[in-house]
Amino acid sequence: MKARVTVMLRDGVLDPQGEAVRHALGALGFSGVAGVRQGKVIELDLAEGTTRDEVARMCEALLANTVIERYEIEMA
Amino acid sequence: MKARVTVMLRDGVLDPQGEAVRHALGALGFSGVAGVRQGKVIELDLAEGTTRDEVARMCEALLANTVIERYEIEMA
Repeated sequence: MKARVTVMLRDGVLDPQGEAVRHALGALGFSGVAGVRQGKVIELDLAEGTTRDEVARMCEALLANTVIERYEIEMA
Repeated sequence: MKARVTVMLRDGVLDPQGEAVRHALGALGFSGVAGVRQGKVIELDLAEGTTRDEVARMCEALLANTVIERYEIEMA
């Protein structure tokens, strides 16, 4: 089974990487890009029967820094 | 309006970052993690009426390296 974890900086945390992308898109002529936030996506190939709780523990332990990041888990 | 772009390495392209995460999860005692792929997610805050085609052009021009990466676009 698969799980997809998306890790984004929390609202209010400065995102210089996203800001650089926004600036670069403007420089390339793409107007109307008001804001960009960049995060990580982690696709996990898991043993059958792995629970969402176990994936949440992986996020808390390693995948996200919950002080400044939030995460979403999609099980598939 | 918002768009979310997910950029992943193509299948067959080595992903040392994902491999490092897989190894670290094992070292932390999470068994049953057979594989990990890590990618980027980019959330764009766009002017109303921006089309999916325009977002695809942003991907081709800047957000993804289509030689080694594939991208998915979700408009919201």
